[in-house]
Amino acid sequence: MTHPEYNPSKEDRMEDQAKPVEPSSLRRAWARFLKGVSYFSGDMEVFGKWMEKRFFLLQLLDWVLRGAAQVMFVNNPLSGLIIFAGLILQNYWWALNGFVGTLFATISALILQQSRGAIAAGLYGYNGILVGLLMAVFSNAGDWYWWLLLPNIFMSMMCPIVSSALASINSRWDLPVFTLPFNILVCLHMVATGHYNHHFPQVLIQPRSELPNITWSEIDVAKLFRSIPVGIGQVYGCDNPWTGGTFIISLFISSPITCAHAILGSAAGMVSGLALSAPFEDIYFGLWGYNCVLACIAIGGMFYALTWQVHLLAITCAFFCAYLGSAIANVMSRFGLPSCTWPFCLSALTFLLLTTGTKRIFKLPLAKVTYPEKNLAFYWRLKKQEKAEKALKERKESEEREEQLKAMNEEVILNEKEQLKLELQRMEEEKKENVPGKPSQYVWAYQV
Amino acid sequence: MTHPEYNPSKEDRMEDQAKPVEPSSLRRAWARFLKGVSYFSGDMEVFGKWMEKRFFLLQLLDWVLRGAAQVMFVNNPLSGLIIFAGLILQNYWWALNGFVGTLFATISALILQQSRGAIAAGLYGYNGILVGLLMAVFSNAGDWYWWLLLPNIFMSMMCPIVSSALASINSRWDLPVFTLPFNILVCLHMVATGHYNHHFPQVLIQPRSELPNITWSEIDVAKLFRSIPVGIGQVYGCDNPWTGGTFIISLFISSPITCAHAILGSAAGMVSGLALSAPFEDIYFGLWGYNCVLACIAIGGMFYALTWQVHLLAITCAFFCAYLGSAIANVMSRFGLPSCTWPFCLSALTFLLLTTGTKRIFKLPLAKVTYPEKNLAFYWRLKKQEKAEKALKERKESEEREEQLKAMNEEVILNEKEQLKLELQRMEEEKKENVPGKPSQYVWAYQV
Amino acid sequence: MTHPEYNPSKEDRMEDQAKPVEPSSLRRAWARFLKGVSYFSGDMEVFGKWMEKRFFLLQLLDWVLRGAAQVMFVNNPLSGLIIFAGLILQNYWWALNGFVGTLFATISALILQQSRGAIAAGLYGYNGILVGLLMAVFSNAGDWYWWLLLPNIFMSMMCPIVSSALASINSRWDLPVFTLPFNILVCLHMVATGHYNHHFPQVLIQPRSELPNITWSEIDVAKLFRSIPVGIGQVYGCDNPWTGGTFIISLFISSPITCAHAILGSAAGMVSGLALSAPFEDIYFGLWGYNCVLACIAIGGMFYALTWQVHLLAITCAFFCAYLGSAIANVMSRFGLPSCTWPFCLSALTFLLLTTGTKRIFKLPLAKVTYPEKNLAFYWRLKKQEKAEKALKERKESEEREEQLKAMNEEVILNEKEQLKLELQRMEEEKKENVPGKPSQYVWAYQV
Repeated sequence: MTHPEYNPSKEDRMEDQAKPVEPSSLRRAWARFLKGVSYFSGDMEVFGKWMEKRFFLLQLLDWVLRGAAQVMFVNNPLSGLIIFAGLILQNYWWALNGFVGTLFATISALILQQSRGAIAAGLYGYNGILVGLLMAVFSNAGDWYWWLLLPNIFMSMMCPIVSSALASINSRWDLPVFTLPFNILVCLHMVATGHYNHHFPQVLIQPRSELPNITWSEIDVAKLFRSIPVGIGQVYGCDNPWTGGTFIISLFISSPITCAHAILGSAAGMVSGLALSAPFEDIYFGLWGYNCVLACIAIGGMFYALTWQVHLLAITCAFFCAYLGSAIANVMSRFGLPSCTWPFCLSALTFLLLTTGTKRIFKLPLAKVTYPEKNLAFYWRLKKQEKAEKALKERKESEEREEQLKAMNEEVILNEKEQLKLELQRMEEEKKENVPGKPSQYVWAYQV
Repeated sequence: MTHPEYNPSKEDRMEDQAKPVEPSSLRRAWARFLKGVSYFSGDMEVFGKWMEKRFFLLQLLDWVLRGAAQVMFVNNPLSGLIIFAGLILQNYWWALNGFVGTLFATISALILQQSRGAIAAGLYGYNGILVGLLMAVFSNAGDWYWWLLLPNIFMSMMCPIVSSALASINSRWDLPVFTLPFNILVCLHMVATGHYNHHFPQVLIQPRSELPNITWSEIDVAKLFRSIPVGIGQVYGCDNPWTGGTFIISLFISSPITCAHAILGSAAGMVSGLALSAPFEDIYFGLWGYNCVLACIAIGGMFYALTWQVHLLAITCAFFCAYLGSAIANVMSRFGLPSCTWPFCLSALTFLLLTTGTKRIFKLPLAKVTYPEKNLAFYWRLKKQEKAEKALKERKESEEREEQLKAMNEEVILNEKEQLKLELQRMEEEKKENVPGKPSQYVWAYQV
Repeated sequence: MTHPEYNPSKEDRMEDQAKPVEPSSLRRAWARFLKGVSYFSGDMEVFGKWMEKRFFLLQLLDWVLRGAAQVMFVNNPLSGLIIFAGLILQNYWWALNGFVGTLFATISALILQQSRGAIAAGLYGYNGILVGLLMAVFSNAGDWYWWLLLPNIFMSMMCPIVSSALASINSRWDLPVFTLPFNILVCLHMVATGHYNHHFPQVLIQPRSELPNITWSEIDVAKLFRSIPVGIGQVYGCDNPWTGGTFIISLFISSPITCAHAILGSAAGMVSGLALSAPFEDIYFGLWGYNCVLACIAIGGMFYALTWQVHLLAITCAFFCAYLGSAIANVMSRFGLPSCTWPFCLSALTFLLLTTGTKRIFKLPLAKVTYPEKNLAFYWRLKKQEKAEKALKERKESEEREEQLKAMNEEVILNEKEQLKLELQRMEEEKKENVPGKPSQYVWAYQV
């Protein structure tokens, strides 16, 4: 997995395979370029390994940067750096809160002795950055209200606890926890304090009792297109289109497939908003996009291996997510809450729980998930391996049959051994029936 | 299982067994009658098999009809046909929406390559018909608002995805998904759009802040009795008592036990409404009945084998369901939502998760669930088999003991083989301890 | 486990171990005193066993008393008696309702043939007493409204059904059901009837739209300190500080560790209330304390073995619980509901689902949970055992290695047997990978 040949994070890989007989000097230059790209694209594995021997605070910075990017499923410190740049472009105070959140979430994970690998991948930081950012975004006390750092630190440090608890549940179905800890903790803080709190007032969110008249002639196509990067920016609570733009760049660096699905998801959200006659202001503000962005990335190549069926599934999921987003926003506004990324979590979990008969929709085991390009390589390798194994098995079986004929002529004393073997096989088959991920067969089979 | 003797779907079976020495001509006529009945009662297995070789569109029609009946746990195309007749009696537009919903849900399941057996049993259609019907019922845009078919088709096609996802979870406890996908998707659509939406307005549902004075002298006993069939009709959102009547007929054709429990459930709901001082109008309108109908059917013979203890449990469940129905209706009205069949789902799932020490409350494995009469036959057969096995085991054990005495005199070389056997047994026992459905023993055992 | 040496429920145990060479007469007197204490402290195991041969109604009384104390995780009839005394001190009618609730919940569990051991430990009674008490507390019909006993009995009898159902789910993660059945059933009753119901009106609970101005000079420090016992009393819905005081005594009798954590939890709740600028009246009334009391007891020594890391975790959990309490109270007030003990249940479950790398946070298997002192003894014994086993294993392994060398010289005929063994090992390892409680490793490992 450390071979640069397996790690070509750009779409040029296709091209690379298509021209196997080029002059060697050009090929060598190309290979060198690919190797160079592989150093800062994908999950920057080489850099991560190099970091392991560095000073602890440097390592921590690496983890925090990766945590910042992990919100978008990107395990890349360079992307994290660009994302922080985007946040500073939006608002200094928010960026500071985000940084504090990521830092303390990571420290808390270290104190609780969580898996060092997961911490190093930023998997304990991404909820922290969202908690920090969104608590600042939804605070009604204005910027630079320093007291806010107290609940911010407390909630960030709760992140690994809630993450670990949710992982204990979700792991039964081999599902990730997504941003559920962030959703839980930010909603907790907001509803525990509320708009009228004296210490930590929240912005006032009220249910809409009437919708403004929508006149299609008033639509602003430029703003509509701008809502696509804004939607990507809203993943981090930012409404600045330039911030959204830098986020797109940070995605492209790590994984072009992720980047493409992010843009597709944001567009799907915008279209859904128009279809369900949402107020134009909400659509321009990117509120219909950010959940779809995340859902589309998660399904489109991240947790499923990307085939065109999965691509269609990802787009369906984005539309479903937009519908769900509208529903959850309406419900949560009754409690003065924003919808956070609940719609993304619920829709993506639903689509990941799906079981189908087709092999073209392949859900990767959670332990093998890296980034879309590498996932795809893993899927292809697995398919090749399966073919090879099948051929081997067939040959073996024919040999076994011959041996069995021989064995039948042998002594009766061996019989008991055979029975034990059969029992083992039976037990294995029983186990296979109990294997998770394939439950629908015997569930749906009733009344057949 | 194809023997007509095992398939006597009428209560006359008792009578049949009581007179074993009748003149042969009468017996033969009786057997012929039973066989005739078996062709269109129960799950119409013979017809289903005959259909397998027919033209695809005819098969699809069979699946759609079975799907329509599966709302009431009935796997019978004839019942489905009668139910569609009842729906047309109520409202053409609603019936059309229901048909579209069932059709597209089934097609979507085919596209997603779900289990063909489950599709053929209508298990992917019943959520579709409810989604289609109830989206039409709760639409505020009036009948024949053709745009409604768009979200109808989208939501129907989402049914198999949500069903499959929920089945992945529920199958861990060997539980069915009931009508949860319908509940989720219709609530989703209604709360995502709401009363004031320009494209898809919903009827206005508001929380009750005051209850009208109830004067018991004003009670209308005729209407109260009519609320029983109306309650059965409300399962499909229909308030026409004749529609409810046709539904009763369709149930009786397939399974008299189901039919009896449906009526009992509706009556229990009505009584609960009076006990909790509900407005009479709600009771007359069948709103207290439909959840209890479904809960009473599910517990009373469908997922448990019918004994008189289970019968009492089913009635308890119906009363609990009515209580829950009132609670959920009050909560959901705050969001402008109807209670759908959430109360049924939650109460039936609770009662199916129950574990008791008594063998008289026997939960059928989900894969063996068909219809109450056949379930009962399965339960009886299992009991007989258990007795036989027990007797056999006792005989075997005594023989084994003798053999063990012999074996102890045999060579030491065999010892290791025995150890392997013991290990196998131990492993099997360990597995048995982890078997689902019997967890309460070691859970509740603490502090004993 | 019946040795009094293993059962020293007082903190004097430390002292005891510190002076092992005292004169024998004093030691004997001390041992006699400890034995005497062990008869009515802890879980009164000796008394429970003696009761087994008594008249059924006496046994039932024992179970009811234990049930009353189990709300605080105390399995002790004497504590139960003192708690009932405290309830009578508060309000006769409430105490009667609590007694009826416990009685009928226990009877219902007997009818449903639940585990006799769990019934005898009062594990089916504690939800019943809370259901009975709180339905009386929140009823708006005034005291001695005898009709209230009807829903009280119905809901109490539903307790074992809901408990059993929830246990089926929670047991998958080796979690207790806590007071979830009580929360579900009381909320069900309250929201199903509501403030305006003619038969069973509830007290009016409304969301707070404005917070009163808080002037810190107005704070009453005496009341603030009194809120600590009041908070403990509020676990049973009592606002009388003397009632709270008797509860503290009842806790101390059974388990001083539990008692200490109860007081700590109540204090943590009070501090959180001040930090989140809650109205002083709420804090004085103990509304910020009771959930934290339960959460702090549950984590601090009851379900985890008490180490100082766990002690810190328990205090963190109390603070988190207070935060959650405020959030849930705000959400549920929209439906006219109190927050019951939902915050405790959710926060304690979250903290019990936590998985960490450190061995100092040891979650006891549910079947081994008794009371903090005994749990601690179990944990220490287990640690000793582990050490001994490790030493033994190392010795064995070296011996095995020698044997393997010998075996390699033996005949080839044994090879197949070895293969079977290897297969067995492999299968066992596979099983170990699927073992619950250790899922986080492979969940979080993605993208590492």
